[in-house]
Amino acid sequence: MGHIIVEVMPKPEILDPQGKAVGSALPRLGITSFTSVRQGKCFHLTVDGPVTDELLADARRAAEEVLSNPIIEDVVRVEELTDAAGGAL
Amino acid sequence: MGHIIVEVMPKPEILDPQGKAVGSALPRLGITSFTSVRQGKCFHLTVDGPVTDELLADARRAAEEVLSNPIIEDVVRVEELTDAAGGAL
Repeated sequence: MGHIIVEVMPKPEILDPQGKAVGSALPRLGITSFTSVRQGKCFHLTVDGPVTDELLADARRAAEEVLSNPIIEDVVRVEELTDAAGGAL
Repeated sequence: MGHIIVEVMPKPEILDPQGKAVGSALPRLGITSFTSVRQGKCFHLTVDGPVTDELLADARRAAEEVLSNPIIEDVVRVEELTDAAGGAL
């Protein structure tokens, strides 16, 4: 069983109120190291069997057509999820 | 200028209605390769200068205390974002 990760972020020129809210909450915790925070979405797609190039192409198409809104968002990553990164799945 | 990515996913035992909705929209596009879809959040944190272990520790603390709700979500990844993955930043 394989997993593909798709990461979608708001375009750089789009305001990101959720990210801004998080960014201004951090100093209250004493965390002042971060100059900006942007919030996006990620999707874990599960496939039967191994991840093939064909499945990655399907994931890329799904990312462009369903998982993101191309007017305000960019698909920044579509790749196989390795065990190290998907430990919590 | 460095970037850290934090990825937060709903715990496996938690229902994920957004992911389910996406999963059932895909076959309408003719994409039937995926057996399940889970939707999570990701955050890109920007730091001045290079990403150090200390900054990663700050990011891990922010992830646990602000960016995720530990009752229903797991922090699945906190790491430096390389240029390859963050091209759209």
